[in-house]
Amino acid sequence: MNPQDLAPVLIGGAWRPAAAVDAFSASNPATGQTLAERFPVSDWSDVDAALDAAVQAFAAMQMLPAERLAGFLRSYAEHLEARAEDICATAAAETGYPVSPRLKDVELVRTVDQLRQAAAAAVDPGWRLPVIDARAKICSVLEPLGPTVVFGPNNFPLAFNGVSGGDFAAALAAGNPVIAKAHSSHPGTCRRLAECAQQAAQKTGMPPGTVQLLYGLRRPDGLRLVSDPRLGAAAFTGSRTAGMSLKTAADAVGKPIYLEMSSVNPVVILPGALAERSQEVVNELVTSALMGTGQFCTNPGLVLLIDGADAQAFLAAMAQRYRSAACGTLLSKGTQQGLMAGIQALTRAGASVVCGNQPAARPGWAWANTLLSVSGQQFLTAAKALQTEAFGNATLAVVAADSAQLVELLAHCEGNLTGCIYSAQDGRDDVLYDAVARVLRPRVGRLLNDKMPTGVAVSPAMNHGGPFPATGHPHFTAVGLPAAMRRFTRLACYDNVRPHRLPPILRGSAAPGRP
Amino acid sequence: MNPQDLAPVLIGGAWRPAAAVDAFSASNPATGQTLAERFPVSDWSDVDAALDAAVQAFAAMQMLPAERLAGFLRSYAEHLEARAEDICATAAAETGYPVSPRLKDVELVRTVDQLRQAAAAAVDPGWRLPVIDARAKICSVLEPLGPTVVFGPNNFPLAFNGVSGGDFAAALAAGNPVIAKAHSSHPGTCRRLAECAQQAAQKTGMPPGTVQLLYGLRRPDGLRLVSDPRLGAAAFTGSRTAGMSLKTAADAVGKPIYLEMSSVNPVVILPGALAERSQEVVNELVTSALMGTGQFCTNPGLVLLIDGADAQAFLAAMAQRYRSAACGTLLSKGTQQGLMAGIQALTRAGASVVCGNQPAARPGWAWANTLLSVSGQQFLTAAKALQTEAFGNATLAVVAADSAQLVELLAHCEGNLTGCIYSAQDGRDDVLYDAVARVLRPRVGRLLNDKMPTGVAVSPAMNHGGPFPATGHPHFTAVGLPAAMRRFTRLACYDNVRPHRLPPILRGSAAPGRP
Repeated sequence: MNPQDLAPVLIGGAWRPAAAVDAFSASNPATGQTLAERFPVSDWSDVDAALDAAVQAFAAMQMLPAERLAGFLRSYAEHLEARAEDICATAAAETGYPVSPRLKDVELVRTVDQLRQAAAAAVDPGWRLPVIDARAKICSVLEPLGPTVVFGPNNFPLAFNGVSGGDFAAALAAGNPVIAKAHSSHPGTCRRLAECAQQAAQKTGMPPGTVQLLYGLRRPDGLRLVSDPRLGAAAFTGSRTAGMSLKTAADAVGKPIYLEMSSVNPVVILPGALAERSQEVVNELVTSALMGTGQFCTNPGLVLLIDGADAQAFLAAMAQRYRSAACGTLLSKGTQQGLMAGIQALTRAGASVVCGNQPAARPGWAWANTLLSVSGQQFLTAAKALQTEAFGNATLAVVAADSAQLVELLAHCEGNLTGCIYSAQDGRDDVLYDAVARVLRPRVGRLLNDKMPTGVAVSPAMNHGGPFPATGHPHFTAVGLPAAMRRFTRLACYDNVRPHRLPPILRGSAAPGRP
Repeated sequence: MNPQDLAPVLIGGAWRPAAAVDAFSASNPATGQTLAERFPVSDWSDVDAALDAAVQAFAAMQMLPAERLAGFLRSYAEHLEARAEDICATAAAETGYPVSPRLKDVELVRTVDQLRQAAAAAVDPGWRLPVIDARAKICSVLEPLGPTVVFGPNNFPLAFNGVSGGDFAAALAAGNPVIAKAHSSHPGTCRRLAECAQQAAQKTGMPPGTVQLLYGLRRPDGLRLVSDPRLGAAAFTGSRTAGMSLKTAADAVGKPIYLEMSSVNPVVILPGALAERSQEVVNELVTSALMGTGQFCTNPGLVLLIDGADAQAFLAAMAQRYRSAACGTLLSKGTQQGLMAGIQALTRAGASVVCGNQPAARPGWAWANTLLSVSGQQFLTAAKALQTEAFGNATLAVVAADSAQLVELLAHCEGNLTGCIYSAQDGRDDVLYDAVARVLRPRVGRLLNDKMPTGVAVSPAMNHGGPFPATGHPHFTAVGLPAAMRRFTRLACYDNVRPHRLPPILRGSAAPGRP
């Protein structure tokens, strides 16, 4: 293995050959073919160097006004737009997602919008919640935590990428250098994004090490990284298994880690909505569930109905649509294997296959659109197993015997990112809605009415978070600025500190701010 | 063991005999004598019943307007004031603290003030950070997490008591029922406080189970409690060993737990301050270090100086004061053993005893005021062991060779609640101040100038928190309202939810709030 044949890593402001212990390539999911570009798995010495560089960068960044961070983020957005063709073509080859309408028209637009929103949030100091108690000579403010590592997921190669996505933008805008760990399924995309970031960093005079990129790490090195004393925080989006390993390592040394791990996103369709607009809801549900081959964190993987003729007709219409809809490409061989294993876990726990669960008639990584169902009674006997996430184009319908059982089912739901309730417009579901919402509300980060969960608007009011195991802590959100930035801060209090030594934001003798 | 001979537990709004598996008594630390009142160690069935009652209470509390919570907190404060004599006499017998000036004049005043501040914070809805995005029809707000267990420490029988202190007030004001776990060294105080709380709860019509009290738990039951699915969150103040056990259990299931575990609270005295006002600083330091026999979370346990004639004179003056000062009472036999073990860990790691470290000439639990010292060079070889908390009236002075070594020493400091820097008034320390502050700032929750750390003002700007291992997460504070209340909340987002179904605070179509 010649390091010169491998893509370079970005450490301390320079692209350099990795201290490689292994190498890997991505593959094109639409064909299954291995792509040409080869990427290194780094030795710990690369991680060590990146941490040292990040510590230096952080010290320098703390001296910079917020406007400089904002300038970098805006410049980065421009560089991404200028290189959109190349980036999206690479992402398409590595993910199987279409350049249009997905990557260029939607995801890149979202990505640059997030970077610009983060730039705007960075310069509006209210996000740091300054509190000045002039009488007691005590004041406090949120300050950046320090070097942040971001592990991006497989399913958003741009908008949640460790080197360009929501966690990156939030951590950077809060004042922290970012060490991005590329996802192994789209390393070429990460490389191109990081090239843009580094160009923007140089152009705007950011310290070397503001943005760094590593492609592959050995598992023990990943655990060591999230618990390293030099690190400020970690952010991870991915599988529950990988997330829990990192969480355990970080928790043991009290290192903040923000995780988005898994979610089946229950959708409850009340009888009145079924009677009133069954076809409309089927359309919305199928569109949401199969969009992007179901590979969304907020994919509606669990649908709950109350048994009856309407519910059976609804499921029949769903199955009809699942059978006739084109079957999309999955992100990787591992994604396909994970989906098949998830479906198997559901059937083992008592779910019946209504349609699908067979090879798809297309090349590359794919599996037939799969609809499963289970009775409410059966769900109650194996609630945990029946909440296994089958990440991809599979959906489990749970048919409750009656209203009381529906509420009972929801009481067995784990923490999720979202929960949706469809109810009649004429009010006939309102009593049941209240009972359902009361149980569902504390189990989800975002509660929706009459709307599927897959659109995660970049709104200051958004919560892309939720109770464990959807995330590691229900107080924080990964989307929505400036709230997402606060994850990467600590509360810093100044008591009797001489005024000229205070951070500028705390210098005024103004009336106490909103605490 | 007859349950009728043991103090009753408070579960579900009623005082009832415990399902006792063991029993214990407190002792009077000033005499070493066992006190008469006997308290149960509960079986899990008591915990189970308390959790069930708390779930019921939480459901009912969510229907109440914030004014009802505030009314309860104010009524509770009044009941405490009415029963001040009895409560303070019991606390004095159990802790050795004087009724005056400590318990009645200071700590009870602080306790009722906190309860009233929490009442005021509860009814000012801005603390919940509502954000309304009217255009996107998305809004979010912090909502209470649910039943909260509070483990109070030994050293503040009133102001940090699980059933009356800061965590209690914050969790309750945020809308959560509290299960208090009494500290084993002052169960009688806890009982009397909880009697007041229960009277206030009844008077103000709070749901049964709003406040509950258990005295003793077996260790596995404590771990089971903080990881129980019915629990919303846990708060703990105490030793690092106990805190880490609870943290590990809670983290494993993603249950929020807020811990305050240990802190040596470095105090750095720069050369100019020594030259300018050595005697004044000695006075402040010795008063702070020996106050309450050193039994404060923010006790200055680690003093850092730069070697020289002034530093040696400072230490000699300190030693002189330590020898001549009356030796106070320690909270329990366990506290004395812990102090002795802490001192032993420090001497084993190379610290020399300047004075003390011998039995005190008084009855009950006590140990001579102890001053230790170590060179900067030695500190660097055993930095971790030399940060062992010797909880009580012991202080370690570290004498750095020069300015550069002083800064290096601080770079080896673990996370602490506080850090203090004394510097000259005439500016001659300012360059060194900057170097010291840069290293100390990220290692402490509260940075002080020219002031000792032991006073924790109940200010909205206060941070009584800090990086691990002082606490479990550097984003949160245990003192300072409303920030402390936010610990006991989760972020709840509503997306397209019909307006009449929104919580009242989110109903307005007002312009977006400050996110």
